[in-house]
Amino acid sequence: MRLAIDVMGGDQGPRAIIEGSAKAVIERPDLELALFGPRQRITAELLRLPQPLAAAASRLVAYDAPSVVSQHASAAWALRHGHDTSMAHMLRDVSDGRAMAGVSAGNTAALVALARRELGMIAGFSRPAISTAIPTRGGRRCYLLDLGANVDSPASRLVDFAVLGAAMAHCVDGVVHPRVALLNVGAEATKGSVVVREANRLLKERASSLPFAYQGYAEGGDIFQGEIDVMVCDGFVGNVTLKASEGLTRMLVERVQMAFESRLCGRLASVLAKPVLKRLKQELDPVRYNGASLLGLKRIVVKSHGGTRADGFYYAIQRALQEVEHDLPMQLAKRWA
Amino acid sequence: MRLAIDVMGGDQGPRAIIEGSAKAVIERPDLELALFGPRQRITAELLRLPQPLAAAASRLVAYDAPSVVSQHASAAWALRHGHDTSMAHMLRDVSDGRAMAGVSAGNTAALVALARRELGMIAGFSRPAISTAIPTRGGRRCYLLDLGANVDSPASRLVDFAVLGAAMAHCVDGVVHPRVALLNVGAEATKGSVVVREANRLLKERASSLPFAYQGYAEGGDIFQGEIDVMVCDGFVGNVTLKASEGLTRMLVERVQMAFESRLCGRLASVLAKPVLKRLKQELDPVRYNGASLLGLKRIVVKSHGGTRADGFYYAIQRALQEVEHDLPMQLAKRWA
Repeated sequence: MRLAIDVMGGDQGPRAIIEGSAKAVIERPDLELALFGPRQRITAELLRLPQPLAAAASRLVAYDAPSVVSQHASAAWALRHGHDTSMAHMLRDVSDGRAMAGVSAGNTAALVALARRELGMIAGFSRPAISTAIPTRGGRRCYLLDLGANVDSPASRLVDFAVLGAAMAHCVDGVVHPRVALLNVGAEATKGSVVVREANRLLKERASSLPFAYQGYAEGGDIFQGEIDVMVCDGFVGNVTLKASEGLTRMLVERVQMAFESRLCGRLASVLAKPVLKRLKQELDPVRYNGASLLGLKRIVVKSHGGTRADGFYYAIQRALQEVEHDLPMQLAKRWA
Repeated sequence: MRLAIDVMGGDQGPRAIIEGSAKAVIERPDLELALFGPRQRITAELLRLPQPLAAAASRLVAYDAPSVVSQHASAAWALRHGHDTSMAHMLRDVSDGRAMAGVSAGNTAALVALARRELGMIAGFSRPAISTAIPTRGGRRCYLLDLGANVDSPASRLVDFAVLGAAMAHCVDGVVHPRVALLNVGAEATKGSVVVREANRLLKERASSLPFAYQGYAEGGDIFQGEIDVMVCDGFVGNVTLKASEGLTRMLVERVQMAFESRLCGRLASVLAKPVLKRLKQELDPVRYNGASLLGLKRIVVKSHGGTRADGFYYAIQRALQEVEHDLPMQLAKRWA
């Protein structure tokens, strides 16, 4: 099992990414990771790996890629000038069939554009969508998509998102008949933007032939209720919602901590609360923690959060391995497209 | 000081609304509230007021309005058939100048449409926007708008939202030079939907003549950071973001409680945590707690959350009183339009 890793592009530089990679390799004896980036930096980081992880170095293979896609580069720049970047080299390792999947913490717009060109789309889908699994009250997860790869999506693309998200919930999480809803400002048929109402019409028209249970409209609060498996929206809405949720979680956890500390018997409660709050913050920061999948491509690509630490990158690799195990693109092409 | 109250339309029926009204009247000796709804129901609820509140009855004056706007009615229905509803009667009390402001917990779309017709818009604004103050990390509040009165807003309307929100932050909260940002999927100039990029161009063009500090783009997480006073977005985005935040807060508070209870020394922590968590849930559910303002109208209208209890309705009345005190529509018309 070989995966391709873009070691550049994370906010913390390659160290966190290489540590996360080492952790994944140690845990799984048949895993080899191809690391793409400036060879000297990779070699230096491999030599610096702390003891329990240093044993992984033999299955972390460095490949030289001299240049880097910066966080501020546009998709157009990446397509024109990105040929020699670590991201493009990583993707070609996947498209050549040497690696089963690729993982990057780099510039999202560039990753979407380069992945589309290097790997190609499954017939029936025009552009990749980005999705991640949001934790819900019931314990089941809700796939939210798109998260920003597509803004100003036409209705037909929202229908594509529904299919892609349902395939993910079915193939990777084993949800037999995923419940899919369109995110809207109200449940009534008269409400919503022109595009969302048109997507609703298209989905209702095709409902009998769709391999998932279309539930109609849902509202923002329903994302966390546990009654919907796939929540579909334009990338603008999904991106703002996800980032607002991350910001709110950070604020809430801070407030809970502060509130404890300011109370009379609060020191004790605060000590008791700390591990609980830490775990919550991780669980509820899904992209930072679990990565996000690029869906609709012929091969598997997972985007790790740019600000991720070693743990987050490790989980993004796990996400990629799960998709490989269930051969998500093949299943998508055969049964869902 | 007289305000007009629509007692119908709350999910809990008129009782919570009349209790909240009574609480406001008790607290402020010069306040009289005109209650609009089926007279018999109002009278029955007034007789039922618990003791400390019963003294308020003489300044809670019932006005008969036989019919009601249901939660499922469309704006078009309300405009065509809503003449005799409690909502329309309440609004006419405001437009006649008898009441200084109106408060309703009813159907938002109907309230926006009827308020626009009955009260009229301040010159320069075409439709009301809905806004509420979101709590932030720094302690300052961030006005988010629009929250759903306008979906598919053109760029020029986003510019209106910026002006309306800034006027609110300035006149009611006393923010000298409000910091206003456009909600987007990234801070880079190349990112965003066509409409948001056009609104950014318009705001930059007018920046030197605007009575606020335009900060450019901000992302979803910035809503809670405390560095922006007014966050502008289309009503679809604002509605989904606000409802997602409410849902996430509910889930987080539940999880913190559950996590405490499942731990060894958790019972104690749980008891200590309960009041803290309850207050947090209230603070972070701004619409339910504080109401939302309809901005751009010639007179003051506050929308209380449909699911609100007496406390929430009481706070919506306080919000209306604050806007009356600062004569928000007059200031808007004179200095901001």
